[in-house]
Amino acid sequence: MATPKKTAPPRPWRSTADLPIRPAAAWQPDPDTAAGRIPLALPRPSTPDPGFRPTAFSGEAVPFQVTAFREGHDLIGVHLRLFSPSGDESLHRLTPRNDGFDRWSVLVSPLEQGTWRFRFEAFGDEVATWAHAADVKIAAGVDTALMRESGALLFQRAAAEKSRPAAERRRLEAAASRLRSPDVADADALDIVRDGEIAAGFAARPLQSLMTVGPTYELLVERERAGVGAWYEFFPRSEGARRQADGTIASGTFRSAAERLPAVAAMGFDVLYLPPIHPIGEINRKGRNNTLDPQPGDPGSPWAIGSAAGGHDTVHPDLGTMDDFRAFVAEAGRHGLEVALDLALQAAPDHPWVTEHPEWFTTLPDGSIAYAENPPKKYQDIYPVNFDNDPEGIRTEVLRVVRHWIAQGVKIFRVDNPHTKPLQFWEWLIATVNDEDPDVVFLAEAFTRPAPMQRLAMAGFQQSYSYFTWRNTKAELEEFLTSISEETADFMRPNLFVNTPDILTEYLQYGGRPAYRVRAAIAATAGASYGVYAGFELYENVARPGSEENIDNEKYEYKLRDWADAERRGDSLAPFLTRLNEIRRAHPALRQLRDLRVHWSDDDAVLVYAKHLPAALTPTGESDTVIVVANVDPHSARQTMVHLDTTQWGVRPGDPFEVVDLITGAEWTWTDHNFVRLDAFQEPAHILHVKEKR
Amino acid sequence: MATPKKTAPPRPWRSTADLPIRPAAAWQPDPDTAAGRIPLALPRPSTPDPGFRPTAFSGEAVPFQVTAFREGHDLIGVHLRLFSPSGDESLHRLTPRNDGFDRWSVLVSPLEQGTWRFRFEAFGDEVATWAHAADVKIAAGVDTALMRESGALLFQRAAAEKSRPAAERRRLEAAASRLRSPDVADADALDIVRDGEIAAGFAARPLQSLMTVGPTYELLVERERAGVGAWYEFFPRSEGARRQADGTIASGTFRSAAERLPAVAAMGFDVLYLPPIHPIGEINRKGRNNTLDPQPGDPGSPWAIGSAAGGHDTVHPDLGTMDDFRAFVAEAGRHGLEVALDLALQAAPDHPWVTEHPEWFTTLPDGSIAYAENPPKKYQDIYPVNFDNDPEGIRTEVLRVVRHWIAQGVKIFRVDNPHTKPLQFWEWLIATVNDEDPDVVFLAEAFTRPAPMQRLAMAGFQQSYSYFTWRNTKAELEEFLTSISEETADFMRPNLFVNTPDILTEYLQYGGRPAYRVRAAIAATAGASYGVYAGFELYENVARPGSEENIDNEKYEYKLRDWADAERRGDSLAPFLTRLNEIRRAHPALRQLRDLRVHWSDDDAVLVYAKHLPAALTPTGESDTVIVVANVDPHSARQTMVHLDTTQWGVRPGDPFEVVDLITGAEWTWTDHNFVRLDAFQEPAHILHVKEKR
Repeated sequence: MATPKKTAPPRPWRSTADLPIRPAAAWQPDPDTAAGRIPLALPRPSTPDPGFRPTAFSGEAVPFQVTAFREGHDLIGVHLRLFSPSGDESLHRLTPRNDGFDRWSVLVSPLEQGTWRFRFEAFGDEVATWAHAADVKIAAGVDTALMRESGALLFQRAAAEKSRPAAERRRLEAAASRLRSPDVADADALDIVRDGEIAAGFAARPLQSLMTVGPTYELLVERERAGVGAWYEFFPRSEGARRQADGTIASGTFRSAAERLPAVAAMGFDVLYLPPIHPIGEINRKGRNNTLDPQPGDPGSPWAIGSAAGGHDTVHPDLGTMDDFRAFVAEAGRHGLEVALDLALQAAPDHPWVTEHPEWFTTLPDGSIAYAENPPKKYQDIYPVNFDNDPEGIRTEVLRVVRHWIAQGVKIFRVDNPHTKPLQFWEWLIATVNDEDPDVVFLAEAFTRPAPMQRLAMAGFQQSYSYFTWRNTKAELEEFLTSISEETADFMRPNLFVNTPDILTEYLQYGGRPAYRVRAAIAATAGASYGVYAGFELYENVARPGSEENIDNEKYEYKLRDWADAERRGDSLAPFLTRLNEIRRAHPALRQLRDLRVHWSDDDAVLVYAKHLPAALTPTGESDTVIVVANVDPHSARQTMVHLDTTQWGVRPGDPFEVVDLITGAEWTWTDHNFVRLDAFQEPAHILHVKEKR
Repeated sequence: MATPKKTAPPRPWRSTADLPIRPAAAWQPDPDTAAGRIPLALPRPSTPDPGFRPTAFSGEAVPFQVTAFREGHDLIGVHLRLFSPSGDESLHRLTPRNDGFDRWSVLVSPLEQGTWRFRFEAFGDEVATWAHAADVKIAAGVDTALMRESGALLFQRAAAEKSRPAAERRRLEAAASRLRSPDVADADALDIVRDGEIAAGFAARPLQSLMTVGPTYELLVERERAGVGAWYEFFPRSEGARRQADGTIASGTFRSAAERLPAVAAMGFDVLYLPPIHPIGEINRKGRNNTLDPQPGDPGSPWAIGSAAGGHDTVHPDLGTMDDFRAFVAEAGRHGLEVALDLALQAAPDHPWVTEHPEWFTTLPDGSIAYAENPPKKYQDIYPVNFDNDPEGIRTEVLRVVRHWIAQGVKIFRVDNPHTKPLQFWEWLIATVNDEDPDVVFLAEAFTRPAPMQRLAMAGFQQSYSYFTWRNTKAELEEFLTSISEETADFMRPNLFVNTPDILTEYLQYGGRPAYRVRAAIAATAGASYGVYAGFELYENVARPGSEENIDNEKYEYKLRDWADAERRGDSLAPFLTRLNEIRRAHPALRQLRDLRVHWSDDDAVLVYAKHLPAALTPTGESDTVIVVANVDPHSARQTMVHLDTTQWGVRPGDPFEVVDLITGAEWTWTDHNFVRLDAFQEPAHILHVKEKR
């Protein structure tokens, strides 16, 4: 198991509790029992299903935790032994959480991509057990001679270990002599018991007994973008679209859309997601506002994929050529933007698949192909794929399509409605693609019940849309943020889109500009990944009556937007989004998922949370702490006390610390209890950086 | 896998949803994926650790549950396939809980002891999917011809299955013809879609597609007494002890204690637990009230085991001979009482082990043997066993001791402080003993943190002491009862002792007689197992100052109690305990753990819960429902509304039903909202039986 440590720097992990590597002491599992000598249970990271492994992204601060205890009162120690994909071995000391539940924990950031292995090792800590008893008993004058001799024996045993540094061995020999010497008073012997240098030596190299080694588990580490990124979504056909003399609109193209790239990049986004770029069906095409009678010039829904011009491996002729697409991807890359494509496995009635592979659809007893439907409603512009008629054929075709786009430079796919396709299809596809290229990222657009959403994540999706848009009150957000950062974070990475072409919530419809502002602030700081669909920054908040989506929905028509004019008039959220993305880039704590903890206020609309990353786990070596206080009632000003568990970033309760508001630049001295006033119409949220003492 | 069903009645299970056995349709696992075609996840019963299997007791109503869903909107069905230890196979239909979490559930009571195997099978339910669509669409006049033809095809397919009864096949053929007949109006075709008899046939024998078979799991079923029983604890040396002319007390004996058996049996108890009956150490013997200076005649603590008279395989000479003990066990048996012995693996300094096997203890550097201690406190009457010095030797000796007592007729052991011994020792011991005799039951007396308590249960202990004595408020009890009946019930069976020689809570010290009464009522009805330590019925409530145990603790002295006189004066809770045990025997719902659900009241001291067992799962074939309403404030009368989810016992919200108070005999008509007044000084709890409509 133990691979020799490679000499080459840098180490493929960051940790707060590295230890010198020593092999686990002689240990044999007891073939008669499942409980180890020192029980180790409920390891994390883990998934609720042994068939799937937990995941993390490169640079993610992962809490490795385990329940460990032993009988009686003797003290134990617990180590984490990690093996990187390339074989680097490391050892990390876990700390007891002392929460009454026997949980032990250590934070480690794996950096290298691939399959890591890890295991926990527990042992009786003989010196710690002795030191605890000796401290109490020598101070109380009980069994002092016995305690001193016991300690001397332990020190001598340790001093005999050749793996200890020579200086430490000499120190231990000397201490053993002094413990035994009648010339040394008990009070001085007590100083030896409490000696910090000796304790540090034993912390790094404990005297271990009853060594118990737990099973070896796997952790899949994916690239950082699998977990971290600011996403922007636009319809390329709208970017550069222009009204013509006859009143119709000429489609934007990859070339015209490329002119928008600098602005998207300037706002600080990392990923640009494009709705489907393929030919759009002509048969039963939808008109504006999802009507059934399209007018000449109506472009149709990009999700009604396929026409005589081609299918999933083709670009819509209105957008340009495949060369144009490649140029667009390259231009995006020059601006630091990665392009994500839509993968929507369904067909318009005139998709080439329909004639070439009718067996990929459901043929009804009357010989017709089944439309998508939710009885008695029908969606006559879409044929759903039937994955059971020819599973091998469909797998081969979809893999071909995905490889095709990877060959054009695309490494991120936003998958449309994956929960309407068999889970095992996705498990197979993602594993197969990632075997060829582990950098490919799939985002699941499944807005459905928790079980299928979580299973899609376990089955391989690197990211998942979430319930974020529907979590708007303080209570809802507290539960949601705890859920994503603690309960499901071992296998599910939410992308907190603030809106989509399908989702314009009542909160945004009726909350005015403060609603847009506070939702963006929460998404950008709470979510390691978050997303914005174009138009959000223009406060587009008019819904089609009775629906939860925009009127004149861009899914069915071109949108002409004058971005620059809105900014000039001060009617754009773009500067605020820009600032949020700057803050994300400057603060590694915000580019994490699992470091979020909810804190408290006395007001039922003032949400408080903080993210903290210890110095040892940041790229810069400086710790990073950000506190967010948000008034989620977009109609009021709120004032309240905010209550913080400052120990989470190493500040003792009651001690003052300096914060700076990263939005306004205001600076305050805070403690664990602070007065806050947030006016939704001014600045609905504080994003506070905790300044380190110098 | 499928063993032919044995012809011999009776069936080794009870179930609300038996199905005719059919083999799982042709099915091959997909070697490429862990997700099945229809995902099956989070099976229950289960334990949090794959190393340990879930348990149940014979006759326990076990909810078998699984998460199952498929992509899209088509309907699925889920079956449970069960294999009894002797090979009986059965099939049970699960019902969707429709709670948004895709959980499916069925209640089954395994009756046969031993290792059961079970698995879940999910499938596309083609007829249910069609019927749902046809119902909506034919009623709406959409695709009627197509819907009728689709149904006819399904019915024909089913009619061709030779495994269906002939009458059903004929019915399906006829229905298919009518669906196709132009002479049958759509309205009449709709009647076929909704035909109850056809639906029942398909419910029993669904048309299955996409069959997915989950892994096979194990469930260990133990004897009923492992989970169900009313326990009574007395010190045999106190029963029949008498003050002698010189003022000292003569010890009770097995013979004199046997005279108390009829009274214990008359109270309705099932198990009589005796503290250790072995010789008690003379060296460092404790005096009364845990003092260090015993007086002549002080008998010492029975847990300081061993003296020149013998050790763990010996009876205390004061109690009589081994023959007397066997006679006592036999006499108890004649009264329907099973005797439980204490297993306390520790030794007094004069235990024979100490001289014969000093290696079973810890020898200190000064050559002495280590006392039990909690630094700086020492317990000089006890040597703890060191299980690591000679594990094989200790295992052999303890197994010998346990076999010795089994040979004397003892099948229940109450294990003292198991959490101070290695967990894997217990796992080995219990498995080894149960291999020889699966009827042997071990009760873990571990009052410690949740992790070790739960692990002891998983490692094999059939029963566990619990936090019950320290859960006294309504809020505490609601959480506790939910925890034991839902969260941990798959692997842990609590015994709700109301008191012990070590535990006299402040609630009992200061709550007066109402406290004793309400605690007994809750323990006897909420706990499938509960227990009473002698003296509880005399309201012995004076604590040693500053402690949580009785003054003049029976652990260190003889107790002379005049049971009959207390009853005569009306100063005994015995009649109430007798009634509680009668109620337990008459109501199978109370002899269950997992059927408890918390309901609601508007008062913060009025606790409400109910237990319900459906008719198919009771020995009598009659359903049983008991509602308990308890005022847990022993100092007041409370009146409040009680709110019930009556659907749990099949009563629609708002419908009236009749209840009878099993304590007072009062009868009322209740609904889902009821007024209750409970005066702690009169009758602090209602125990209400829901009368079935005739």
